[in-house]
Amino acid sequence: MTLVLGGAASGKSAWAEGHVKTLGLPMIYVATAQALDDEMSTKIAAHRKGRGAGWETVETPLDPAAALRGLPADRAVLVDCATMWLSNLMLNEMETEPAVDGFLAALAASPAQVTVVSNEVGQGIVPDNALARRFRDAQGRLNIRLAAQADRVVHVVAGLPNVLKGEI
Amino acid sequence: MTLVLGGAASGKSAWAEGHVKTLGLPMIYVATAQALDDEMSTKIAAHRKGRGAGWETVETPLDPAAALRGLPADRAVLVDCATMWLSNLMLNEMETEPAVDGFLAALAASPAQVTVVSNEVGQGIVPDNALARRFRDAQGRLNIRLAAQADRVVHVVAGLPNVLKGEI
Amino acid sequence: MTLVLGGAASGKSAWAEGHVKTLGLPMIYVATAQALDDEMSTKIAAHRKGRGAGWETVETPLDPAAALRGLPADRAVLVDCATMWLSNLMLNEMETEPAVDGFLAALAASPAQVTVVSNEVGQGIVPDNALARRFRDAQGRLNIRLAAQADRVVHVVAGLPNVLKGEI
Repeated sequence: MTLVLGGAASGKSAWAEGHVKTLGLPMIYVATAQALDDEMSTKIAAHRKGRGAGWETVETPLDPAAALRGLPADRAVLVDCATMWLSNLMLNEMETEPAVDGFLAALAASPAQVTVVSNEVGQGIVPDNALARRFRDAQGRLNIRLAAQADRVVHVVAGLPNVLKGEI
Repeated sequence: MTLVLGGAASGKSAWAEGHVKTLGLPMIYVATAQALDDEMSTKIAAHRKGRGAGWETVETPLDPAAALRGLPADRAVLVDCATMWLSNLMLNEMETEPAVDGFLAALAASPAQVTVVSNEVGQGIVPDNALARRFRDAQGRLNIRLAAQADRVVHVVAGLPNVLKGEI
Repeated sequence: MTLVLGGAASGKSAWAEGHVKTLGLPMIYVATAQALDDEMSTKIAAHRKGRGAGWETVETPLDPAAALRGLPADRAVLVDCATMWLSNLMLNEMETEPAVDGFLAALAASPAQVTVVSNEVGQGIVPDNALARRFRDAQGRLNIRLAAQADRVVHVVAGLPNVLKGEI
């Protein structure tokens, strides 16, 4: 498993897509974003355009683990992104810890080549509101667990990879 | 071209100034900040003091590309910073994309040794207000384009350089 | 002296604790956090549980320098964290510059093996309120000074160390 971390508009998704394409396998895009407003719709359309053709897309705002189950080894999967998924869980007032356990178990069990994109959100000033602080902590814990389990971890800054674990 | 990225108060400007000084060429400081209030005036004065003597200064809040045109190869130029410039464009409700195209073209065309300072602003929590989110996205895209064109990219953290591209 | 930087919930404290344990010396935990509300109490309890047994704890919200004075060379000290301390100084409207001078002098004078944890807070969008901006600048300057004096600087992202200075 490969974890691709990065800030907002850091080029992390584009870098991850390029990485997945190099694997030379049939590609599956596991999308967790939901077009709930115009801003998100525009973002999703821009991402889809940037990604290009050649992807089978699975939309799963709440259960990316389900999309991983049963996939054969000769698939390259991009989960984009863990942050949207976590945000969807919290907006739906679902428990995050069991969901994260399930996602990590599905990643460990999958024979496919899986790349997970996630946001770095903890390097700014402490947010004013308590929900944002809770989200920041949950995202940090999720990233730590994903990174511990990953074979490769890349931190993307301005489109450039900084390898934190493994070899790319 | 060298791109120096970093957070607020990360020491990125001081590092960039030190880098420019090592080039041993007549130095030009292209300043994009404007002293619109006391907080900015104090910041600008502190930066000027830290920078020391030996710089020719060009103030250009909206058009750093103009300051680059016509400069000979034996000049070391520091553009500080792309973030202030982008912010000035947006505050003046100017289109950012054509301006960025023009700046990148001027950088590519210049025979001078140019170093550009820019902020990393995307590693905190999602901002509440839409303008801040738009700025964050525009800044991220600008950094990606600058980094793609740069020969060297350095991410400064606590005054220390983390080289992301090229050799320093 | 070792400086461990990282965002919120980045795993910086856990990494720093692991580093201190490898030194094989009696361990002293210099705590600057105060349980002023339930959120902080919960955080402190979780950190204490994660840290495990084997630490002598010194609580000092305002003067970590005092905790360093007089310690012998065969002690491994963890100051966690410089950010809470700086925040406590500012909340108590105390001057930060002389306090930082004193802390850096105590670090330089101590024969003990000292590790300092500090937050990276400058890589998000510019905060709305002036106090947050002042804090961000003070934190940045403190990190730069700590990093300049440190023998080793590590930036922790998702629990993984990115070495910026020295060898780990």
